[in-house]
Amino acid sequence: MDLNADMGEGFGSWSMGDDSALLEVVTSANVACGFHAGDPSIMRRVTAEAVERGVAIGAHVGYADKPGFGRRFLDIEPAALRDEVVYQIGALDAFARIAGDRVRYVKPHGALYNTIGHHVEQATAVVAAVAEYDKTLPVLGLPGSVWLRLAAEAGLTAVHEAFADRAYTPSGTLVSRREAGSVLHDASEIAARCIAMATGRPIQDSSGGSLVLDPTSICVHGDTPGAVDIARRVRGALEGAGVTLRPFTG
Amino acid sequence: MDLNADMGEGFGSWSMGDDSALLEVVTSANVACGFHAGDPSIMRRVTAEAVERGVAIGAHVGYADKPGFGRRFLDIEPAALRDEVVYQIGALDAFARIAGDRVRYVKPHGALYNTIGHHVEQATAVVAAVAEYDKTLPVLGLPGSVWLRLAAEAGLTAVHEAFADRAYTPSGTLVSRREAGSVLHDASEIAARCIAMATGRPIQDSSGGSLVLDPTSICVHGDTPGAVDIARRVRGALEGAGVTLRPFTG
Amino acid sequence: MDLNADMGEGFGSWSMGDDSALLEVVTSANVACGFHAGDPSIMRRVTAEAVERGVAIGAHVGYADKPGFGRRFLDIEPAALRDEVVYQIGALDAFARIAGDRVRYVKPHGALYNTIGHHVEQATAVVAAVAEYDKTLPVLGLPGSVWLRLAAEAGLTAVHEAFADRAYTPSGTLVSRREAGSVLHDASEIAARCIAMATGRPIQDSSGGSLVLDPTSICVHGDTPGAVDIARRVRGALEGAGVTLRPFTG
Amino acid sequence: MDLNADMGEGFGSWSMGDDSALLEVVTSANVACGFHAGDPSIMRRVTAEAVERGVAIGAHVGYADKPGFGRRFLDIEPAALRDEVVYQIGALDAFARIAGDRVRYVKPHGALYNTIGHHVEQATAVVAAVAEYDKTLPVLGLPGSVWLRLAAEAGLTAVHEAFADRAYTPSGTLVSRREAGSVLHDASEIAARCIAMATGRPIQDSSGGSLVLDPTSICVHGDTPGAVDIARRVRGALEGAGVTLRPFTG
Repeated sequence: MDLNADMGEGFGSWSMGDDSALLEVVTSANVACGFHAGDPSIMRRVTAEAVERGVAIGAHVGYADKPGFGRRFLDIEPAALRDEVVYQIGALDAFARIAGDRVRYVKPHGALYNTIGHHVEQATAVVAAVAEYDKTLPVLGLPGSVWLRLAAEAGLTAVHEAFADRAYTPSGTLVSRREAGSVLHDASEIAARCIAMATGRPIQDSSGGSLVLDPTSICVHGDTPGAVDIARRVRGALEGAGVTLRPFTG
Repeated sequence: MDLNADMGEGFGSWSMGDDSALLEVVTSANVACGFHAGDPSIMRRVTAEAVERGVAIGAHVGYADKPGFGRRFLDIEPAALRDEVVYQIGALDAFARIAGDRVRYVKPHGALYNTIGHHVEQATAVVAAVAEYDKTLPVLGLPGSVWLRLAAEAGLTAVHEAFADRAYTPSGTLVSRREAGSVLHDASEIAARCIAMATGRPIQDSSGGSLVLDPTSICVHGDTPGAVDIARRVRGALEGAGVTLRPFTG
Repeated sequence: MDLNADMGEGFGSWSMGDDSALLEVVTSANVACGFHAGDPSIMRRVTAEAVERGVAIGAHVGYADKPGFGRRFLDIEPAALRDEVVYQIGALDAFARIAGDRVRYVKPHGALYNTIGHHVEQATAVVAAVAEYDKTLPVLGLPGSVWLRLAAEAGLTAVHEAFADRAYTPSGTLVSRREAGSVLHDASEIAARCIAMATGRPIQDSSGGSLVLDPTSICVHGDTPGAVDIARRVRGALEGAGVTLRPFTG
Repeated sequence: MDLNADMGEGFGSWSMGDDSALLEVVTSANVACGFHAGDPSIMRRVTAEAVERGVAIGAHVGYADKPGFGRRFLDIEPAALRDEVVYQIGALDAFARIAGDRVRYVKPHGALYNTIGHHVEQATAVVAAVAEYDKTLPVLGLPGSVWLRLAAEAGLTAVHEAFADRAYTPSGTLVSRREAGSVLHDASEIAARCIAMATGRPIQDSSGGSLVLDPTSICVHGDTPGAVDIARRVRGALEGAGVTLRPFTG
């Protein structure tokens, strides 16, 4: 099983989360590329540390929107979006290669992630960017998303992820953040769900039913000190359950 | 002989110069990387057209300063500068590779170009960025500059350029733009000087003496319609004088 | 009758349109405030020239999106949008006051203009910003828009504008730019329509029917040399028809 | 005596310091205006809270440099700098007025503060901006600085500040941050120095001699939790010594 988390989300004098602590926990790092967060020096630091710890480097591509942290839908022209994604992957890859590795996968961030779950033109644009850059780069996303469907159709390796701390509907989609109970906060519960996810057993969906997710990677959060603790707890629980953690990129 | 010019200096809805016209004239394109000018879609367009025409792609790296077009000295920390240069080269290289080629050389832009002519810390930072990214990338600059000296010491190939339309002092440095006569405007005179430069013959320096420049590349400008005409005239004159034009990168 | 046009849309070394030429033609200037276009020095120059010529200064507020020139919908939080609009008006007002006048009205730009024609939350946010800043500031927009309706409900003076060069549907809305014939290019036709608009006579709608618009201001474009010529033609035609041109702000 | 501190230095999702805690301590708030830090929503929040607590609002104007937090010298044209300062004051003033007050003074930030201590052209530009915007606005700075000298010559009220936690040379200038002992960390020592400063008694300079500073305002820092504690300690000590704290703007 792979554990992925967003990283490198500071900007200049502003910090966000504890990248070093998180890199001790996860096996894949979604590294911000300077568009929604991150800057060149942060990208260098995080990629270097990731390589040192054997953590796979993913390009966490987003809208060019630092004021909104990439969390706001932008109705950008698909061709412009495609080019912005190419730009971000290329920039991060430079640091990854200097650190001795390379970008191993691509995961969209925030509003872009949400948008291309259903927005065909923008999803097509991001798929085209990845395919142009390197057809062998896997992409990370939600099963059932337009993004993963189009990626697979374009010949990319589409990798399923599940969220450690999010409630799921009976049909396997995420409960909207606007609804109560959409985000889990209890570390024990989250850890137990992750063990279930990782071992092919069902979790409880939002209606109380059973739902089997079969993720290749589990996404944990790290942008608060509490989140790092939860991530550590998840890792410990998975290891305790005999689950081997390693990057999904092999 | 190589002819180089700055290119891709528009931004979003704003344009600057006529890249297509200039790409018909030069053999090397200094392509803005989105920091002082340029954006991902412009970078795609210019690199694609450059490859189509056999023009070599250079990373025209600059300070992150769109409001000032990279023409203002910024007292940035050397480590941050190094990382910004790596970022820019990596981003441009993504487009160059998609277009079927790759970044072939690095030339700093504007205030960064001027600064690292003498500023050891910033010059060291830019050299380190290029060397880290790809030790085989040549760098373009003025003979006698700290930038080229440090580049050579670091094992990079330091390539001399001369400016088609700038007056030179007897010691071979550029006459400051603040002085009258520092920039030549007469197309015939400029073309004649370029022929001299390209054939090992002396030009007249600012005191009326003889000065032999021995450039590997001549820089022409293209950010005004008149400049493109001068660049065309230079190319025609050089070809008429039997000078073969091709990228210095071979 | 008032003639308004967008102005101050350059950025740093990049120019857009001919502000000085346009200021000779219009009576109201929609001045970009540095978010989608414009910068402090352009704002100073345009406001100073506007005051000199007796042209009313309007705050042309937009999304914070220079790469997209404010032409792309951004799903920004209404409270953040409100604050960004306040910020833009305040910044422009500083230059207007230094020039000896003040901001006289507010007109949203591009995608923001289009969005708040129907998007209640964003329209409410822009209305709140104007009302907070100065309840006496009129706002410019399309009749029937949510923007003008909410502005009027909030006690602002809602001023109707018509577009000199746009086709109208029988119901008085603009024909989408995606449809053929949505934008008129013939200067004589445009001038004739403007005379009709300004004198209470009907124009021909897109189905060939008669449509009476009753604008307080007519919007002309100026971001191309041809557009300035058309604007001049419109002004000449209106004056020839005995229409007095003066700022709608009185 | 007045206590001033930098505030509103977050940006979007990134925070910096604890503005609310600091606003309970100081009497004057140097509010970032969105160029080196801050954004419209933060400016609204901080100005509203400042007015509520009777804290005077100052425009903390800086270079347009979020990646460098305004801490890097930028060789900007004086006219462009002047216009950027006008823009920032106007934008902040909009929020101050909505909150029921107005901008009461101007204090440059970071590298701009340091630069205009000696750089005549840039100091002249900032003075011109303040004088144009409102000749009655006092400006805050170091005694002996070019900035305060030129401000006074231009008819502005030049107000002296001292730094609570910085070592001073015998001639009354700040010991460079590059030297050991330039920044004091002991809360008791800092508090004792502030009492001396506020009551006309000498502090110890960096050579062990006696130095009388006669500040109208004392600057405390607040960008770390520890700094807020020190600021509280300073306030308590001053009040304990019978010093009345109130904004220097009256």
